[in-house]
Amino acid sequence: MASDVPTFAVPPGFLGSGRREGAAISIAGIPLDIGTTNRSGARFGPQAIRQASRMLVDGAHPTTGMNVSELLSDIGDFRIALGDIPASLKAIEAQAAAVDHLVALGGEHGVTLALLRALARRNGPLGLIHFDAHVDTWPDNFGQPYAHGSVFYHAIEENLVDPRRMIQIGIRSPVEREVLDWTAGRGVTVVTAQDTHEQGPTAVAERARSVVGAAPCYLSFDIDALDPAFAPGTGTPEIGGLASWQTQSILRRLTGLRFLGMDVVEVAPAYDVAEITSLAAATMVYEYVALAAAMRLQQRSA
Amino acid sequence: MASDVPTFAVPPGFLGSGRREGAAISIAGIPLDIGTTNRSGARFGPQAIRQASRMLVDGAHPTTGMNVSELLSDIGDFRIALGDIPASLKAIEAQAAAVDHLVALGGEHGVTLALLRALARRNGPLGLIHFDAHVDTWPDNFGQPYAHGSVFYHAIEENLVDPRRMIQIGIRSPVEREVLDWTAGRGVTVVTAQDTHEQGPTAVAERARSVVGAAPCYLSFDIDALDPAFAPGTGTPEIGGLASWQTQSILRRLTGLRFLGMDVVEVAPAYDVAEITSLAAATMVYEYVALAAAMRLQQRSA
Amino acid sequence: MASDVPTFAVPPGFLGSGRREGAAISIAGIPLDIGTTNRSGARFGPQAIRQASRMLVDGAHPTTGMNVSELLSDIGDFRIALGDIPASLKAIEAQAAAVDHLVALGGEHGVTLALLRALARRNGPLGLIHFDAHVDTWPDNFGQPYAHGSVFYHAIEENLVDPRRMIQIGIRSPVEREVLDWTAGRGVTVVTAQDTHEQGPTAVAERARSVVGAAPCYLSFDIDALDPAFAPGTGTPEIGGLASWQTQSILRRLTGLRFLGMDVVEVAPAYDVAEITSLAAATMVYEYVALAAAMRLQQRSA
Amino acid sequence: MASDVPTFAVPPGFLGSGRREGAAISIAGIPLDIGTTNRSGARFGPQAIRQASRMLVDGAHPTTGMNVSELLSDIGDFRIALGDIPASLKAIEAQAAAVDHLVALGGEHGVTLALLRALARRNGPLGLIHFDAHVDTWPDNFGQPYAHGSVFYHAIEENLVDPRRMIQIGIRSPVEREVLDWTAGRGVTVVTAQDTHEQGPTAVAERARSVVGAAPCYLSFDIDALDPAFAPGTGTPEIGGLASWQTQSILRRLTGLRFLGMDVVEVAPAYDVAEITSLAAATMVYEYVALAAAMRLQQRSA
Amino acid sequence: MASDVPTFAVPPGFLGSGRREGAAISIAGIPLDIGTTNRSGARFGPQAIRQASRMLVDGAHPTTGMNVSELLSDIGDFRIALGDIPASLKAIEAQAAAVDHLVALGGEHGVTLALLRALARRNGPLGLIHFDAHVDTWPDNFGQPYAHGSVFYHAIEENLVDPRRMIQIGIRSPVEREVLDWTAGRGVTVVTAQDTHEQGPTAVAERARSVVGAAPCYLSFDIDALDPAFAPGTGTPEIGGLASWQTQSILRRLTGLRFLGMDVVEVAPAYDVAEITSLAAATMVYEYVALAAAMRLQQRSA
Amino acid sequence: MASDVPTFAVPPGFLGSGRREGAAISIAGIPLDIGTTNRSGARFGPQAIRQASRMLVDGAHPTTGMNVSELLSDIGDFRIALGDIPASLKAIEAQAAAVDHLVALGGEHGVTLALLRALARRNGPLGLIHFDAHVDTWPDNFGQPYAHGSVFYHAIEENLVDPRRMIQIGIRSPVEREVLDWTAGRGVTVVTAQDTHEQGPTAVAERARSVVGAAPCYLSFDIDALDPAFAPGTGTPEIGGLASWQTQSILRRLTGLRFLGMDVVEVAPAYDVAEITSLAAATMVYEYVALAAAMRLQQRSA
Repeated sequence: MASDVPTFAVPPGFLGSGRREGAAISIAGIPLDIGTTNRSGARFGPQAIRQASRMLVDGAHPTTGMNVSELLSDIGDFRIALGDIPASLKAIEAQAAAVDHLVALGGEHGVTLALLRALARRNGPLGLIHFDAHVDTWPDNFGQPYAHGSVFYHAIEENLVDPRRMIQIGIRSPVEREVLDWTAGRGVTVVTAQDTHEQGPTAVAERARSVVGAAPCYLSFDIDALDPAFAPGTGTPEIGGLASWQTQSILRRLTGLRFLGMDVVEVAPAYDVAEITSLAAATMVYEYVALAAAMRLQQRSA
Repeated sequence: MASDVPTFAVPPGFLGSGRREGAAISIAGIPLDIGTTNRSGARFGPQAIRQASRMLVDGAHPTTGMNVSELLSDIGDFRIALGDIPASLKAIEAQAAAVDHLVALGGEHGVTLALLRALARRNGPLGLIHFDAHVDTWPDNFGQPYAHGSVFYHAIEENLVDPRRMIQIGIRSPVEREVLDWTAGRGVTVVTAQDTHEQGPTAVAERARSVVGAAPCYLSFDIDALDPAFAPGTGTPEIGGLASWQTQSILRRLTGLRFLGMDVVEVAPAYDVAEITSLAAATMVYEYVALAAAMRLQQRSA
Repeated sequence: MASDVPTFAVPPGFLGSGRREGAAISIAGIPLDIGTTNRSGARFGPQAIRQASRMLVDGAHPTTGMNVSELLSDIGDFRIALGDIPASLKAIEAQAAAVDHLVALGGEHGVTLALLRALARRNGPLGLIHFDAHVDTWPDNFGQPYAHGSVFYHAIEENLVDPRRMIQIGIRSPVEREVLDWTAGRGVTVVTAQDTHEQGPTAVAERARSVVGAAPCYLSFDIDALDPAFAPGTGTPEIGGLASWQTQSILRRLTGLRFLGMDVVEVAPAYDVAEITSLAAATMVYEYVALAAAMRLQQRSA
Repeated sequence: MASDVPTFAVPPGFLGSGRREGAAISIAGIPLDIGTTNRSGARFGPQAIRQASRMLVDGAHPTTGMNVSELLSDIGDFRIALGDIPASLKAIEAQAAAVDHLVALGGEHGVTLALLRALARRNGPLGLIHFDAHVDTWPDNFGQPYAHGSVFYHAIEENLVDPRRMIQIGIRSPVEREVLDWTAGRGVTVVTAQDTHEQGPTAVAERARSVVGAAPCYLSFDIDALDPAFAPGTGTPEIGGLASWQTQSILRRLTGLRFLGMDVVEVAPAYDVAEITSLAAATMVYEYVALAAAMRLQQRSA
Repeated sequence: MASDVPTFAVPPGFLGSGRREGAAISIAGIPLDIGTTNRSGARFGPQAIRQASRMLVDGAHPTTGMNVSELLSDIGDFRIALGDIPASLKAIEAQAAAVDHLVALGGEHGVTLALLRALARRNGPLGLIHFDAHVDTWPDNFGQPYAHGSVFYHAIEENLVDPRRMIQIGIRSPVEREVLDWTAGRGVTVVTAQDTHEQGPTAVAERARSVVGAAPCYLSFDIDALDPAFAPGTGTPEIGGLASWQTQSILRRLTGLRFLGMDVVEVAPAYDVAEITSLAAATMVYEYVALAAAMRLQQRSA
Repeated sequence: MASDVPTFAVPPGFLGSGRREGAAISIAGIPLDIGTTNRSGARFGPQAIRQASRMLVDGAHPTTGMNVSELLSDIGDFRIALGDIPASLKAIEAQAAAVDHLVALGGEHGVTLALLRALARRNGPLGLIHFDAHVDTWPDNFGQPYAHGSVFYHAIEENLVDPRRMIQIGIRSPVEREVLDWTAGRGVTVVTAQDTHEQGPTAVAERARSVVGAAPCYLSFDIDALDPAFAPGTGTPEIGGLASWQTQSILRRLTGLRFLGMDVVEVAPAYDVAEITSLAAATMVYEYVALAAAMRLQQRSA
């Protein structure tokens, strides 16, 4: 094999990476989970995802042939303010603003608001591909303004995301009619989990590409988009979700988009079994990096 | 969000419900598991399903828009006779007979016999939609007459169920030829798990509606109809089973049927992981209540 | 039911079988796991698979009607040399050579090399149906010549397998381009997991039958061919894998092939949940025995 | 047996109790855990402790003969402000102030500050018996003023507790010298876990009684006072801790004290095994109620 | 090492033993658990205890030097009547009556009544050493006459055990005063867990020897005598229990007693962790066999 | 608190340490586990121990006041040869020889032979304090010369350890008489677990100090010295073992010894619960570093 280090002895950074100057993409963990409305524990997501990523170190990405680990710098975890959501969001935004192309390992979905603020400040409103079981467009989160259930309400209200260039994939939770109406009314495209099962990943990927278009965009992957069979280790699971092969199939077809960053959130390792949720999250990052890097290569040679 | 109680603090009844007069549907637990032939532990099914149901409290049902929790009264657990199957079945039947529209949380599948006796006494032989990995039409259960493997043999022999209006979905376990022959010979429609994977849920739902027809019917959902990936917490798992999205897709298409009751059985929480089996069971009840309530509304307005 | 022993009290051999003269097929465990590159623990695979197999004792195979347990002799576990791969492989080969039609319960995939050596010595190069997430054709295994990542490189190099009659199903791990090129260059047919999801099991089975043809062949089933949702208890999981119903559907369609043996490998029970991985492995053996026995009957009557 | 309801079917309140007017002691859950510095999840402590308490329903307390469940009213969970510590503490204090004799089921140790504020307002500074692995007298908690590491710093500074009538039992974590000095300097008695192992529970109980004296006092039981072998399900475990029999032995010897309330905190069920931590917590409450009720009887008859 | 089979490959009988004529002691499993009042699952006790016993195969007993595995014949599991307690007890008694010196692996404690009936019929009322958290002398078990809570009530009433030669060690559960009074009134010696912690195992062993005397006696070991830290895998755990070293220390000092049999009961593997409960149970059997065999040698040479 | 990083966000090195020049003590992981005779998985010991060590970062050692983390350099994991014990031992010895004062995180106990070879080459035969359930002086390990059961046979035979200055604490497994005789015959002092329970840690520590004396010595801590209640996550557990407080009490009394190095071995995380075994192992290292550093300070100032 290419490496002489067996999988179980790979160093602790994502794909075994350390901090490295000049890498195309930076990885950072964001261990914030205090706004979660059901199970907590996503604070341990970053380390669990890194640990699981060791399965993916050796060899090239199977369809693109990219050597993914060569493209990365793992810059460690962002500082947060223990027990304080507003202060944490401020700190996350500041740290994210200092990174060029960031892939964030959550933490709960609430962190995405801070990440989008940092990006939108530089780039204007973004297109968004959002995998999730929940629309996350409630105006508040059980009384808490900024937490994982309200993140895209604020992202849209703050003009960080262009709702007409936003697609949600895997949606299936109970939800109030007025929340759905608000979401649709702003122009967001919602593809439910049942839609995905019926139409297949090729059609969904086509839809996503057409919604998002060629302008800058972002990928936010809530691991509960996957069915609990594929991702039990999460805080607000809903049955009837996506299979991991479906999401891989969709992601691999998102060529031609101009991604500026990604996050994978809501991995709660205390509820995981045999690291399968962490491995799913790590693989989504792996797919994203292979995709984004391939695009970058293409753009350079173009 | 609609509620101001975070998911993790919802009260312990099903969907947070307590006992409530005049509710359309009553929920009761039946903690009987002593006839099980492999793993036991379904006695803890009722409390686990109730606990998992808290994920579904907030918001309306995503496709029907029904506010499911408003329709329910959780009347607690039925009394059983510890260690005594015949006495337990008698007690269950008596308690079930006092309830108008009952959804029972098992417990093992053996309890369904008592529930059908209570219903058939009032309504005559019922149509039946039966999700399961096993036909459950053995004439006995390893020497025990009334337990989870023989429940529908007796239900048919006692004329509680009309076998020509009975469909089994998800069947796949080893089984003696004569048991299959008896089942088919009585007119039961058997749709295997492989059939479901190949034909898809829309076709299976269509078949179910056509078999059962418009007369009164019952839904019995053995959680082992689901694949062990989706429902590990059960006593007699068989691989190759249904995905939870498939069963949701079938259930949502069962409009127009005249349901008199439902049970979900064989959840054994000691073998569950991250509550995914309990959540699947809770969601099947949630789908049923949304469906049954929508039908009732329709019938009233008709 | 046919048996008067409840599932939980079945004796400890595979399907409750003991050692029996004249049985059509022999089962042996091979508790070797020391060449594994990530998680270890497949040494406990044999006992876990036997234990899980008790679910399948009672009744006939659902599609063939075969009484599978009657065809088997469980001859216990093969001796291995603790901590020594080369000596273990030699010992395994010698013991395998003394058995007529062997189904081996691994242990890691490295044992398959010894099993193929024993078979090819008597029968010449074999056709091969290989379910796996990994091609296992690396020329070495992190510096170790004979272990689970390099087994088919050596099997081909040693002329134990005819690569043009070899098909790999479920492939999806990261891998170096040169390894893929070598594999394809030798004529091996590779069907990825995504291929299987898109083409469906009927097409894949057809392809397998056409690649392997009518000459003697072998079935090697690495349990990580299944998605971690269906088989978490394994050493080198990869997401995006096969559902268990798909592999059953493929196996049941492999009629007409001339199987000389089978193994199921890489079950690591310490990472399993509720025995679902062990049950999947046991069921693959169950499907194989039903298939092989049906073929044998057919050949005799022909 | 006294009850005719088997243990597994007892209703969901603590010891099966519901809300009951005129009960001597009220039980309330407080599902707050967002200030925790390591593992979170104590938000599920209340329901897990209640569930485990069912083991203790049937029969009288073994040494006092008290029928503990008759003394209780389970008033459900206190409202908290999701994701907001200061607002939560304010809400907890207000709810606690409305209850006469409260036993609180945490939640993290931070809630004790609110409970002491409510009590001290009515009763002046209290004596305190504090079981814990940690002194919890840091002036802040990783930048957060009010959370589980700083609770007794503030309780002393706010004059809620009289430090000369305060004893800490089971202490053993790493700690800065200045924190220890401050604690000792204020007059707190510290009995380490090693002290307890060497001196035995009788001596420690004697010490506790002499430190606390006859004036009103409070019992705060952080479950991590127990060794992780006895209580794995907690957020900040330290090895070398107390055995559960030692703490029972101490508690049973605390007769003659004038307890006004109690809490048991830091049960994190996601890290528990077989409910042993929850059962330990439930039993500490059970011991406390038997003790407090016996004292009350004695005082009345005196 | 003496054996050339590594621990993980030892055959599945207790200590690797098979059925063997002329062995001093026979081992049988009794997979009955349907009278249990809280968690079920002791039906899997026999196989789990056998599996865990492999740790003890190689080498002699550390203090007696006995080669324990040479003394044993594992005769498999007793037949029971699925779902039927009275019929099961009758079947167990008949099978036990056919065995000379039996060590039974439960199953729930209810089975002990059948075992004592078989022994007392031949030998008259026996002395009894009973390790347990519960007195098990309730006159009934939640309405069920013969199950694990009432076993010694009936054993005394049926004159199978001489209560003045009976000692209970480890007692600590809640219990009604009248049950304690009845037990004491019949002359049973009760040593609580707290007594054992305070007096030490040497004193308790001395007490046991003096209570039981030189006439024939029996050892019944309910695994819940151990603290849940040492034995989480059981149905009705109580905290404050014995450490495993204490029970070993007591057992090793019971020389000079005339044991006719033993059982170890209430191991519920679904609640175990890392097999520690099963290993504790297996080791108690191992200690008993070393003790009983040493006595037999002594008696022969006397 | 001293640190501003919450426990859950501490970097991945031992106590959060990175590689640091001039540190008093170096930490290295050794992920070798292929000679284990029962459960494998100690290859994941190093990362699990490091992760658990985060609980100990903040604050000084509670009895010595040492700031332990300041004394350390975590130099990562040693290279091993996958699947090859002799080559691995050679590689480990070479890497250990390059480190001044090494604390090794196993891996299995077999690695200690290589570590002792590296040390004895420079320092001559060492005194040894050996915590373990097993004597580890079998002349071979199920046919394998160098693995965890034979490590001290070879260490003595190769003159790496002076057996008259060697003490074993916690011994309790089955063992052949001739192995015990050889061990005693060479002059090794054996303190069983029962001895430790009866005599108490102060006496055992005194004995250890007197056996080892003032010449250079080594500490080898097999985590299975602890009872499985305190350390379930290990490969060859034996009940009746030490409590973690006892080993801490012994270690803290080993002042005045001249330690040259330490290892903690046999942590198998796949069998752990809530990280309690890893935390016990991390804390033993923590105690050792505090002790060794205090000695060094004392020696410098003397």
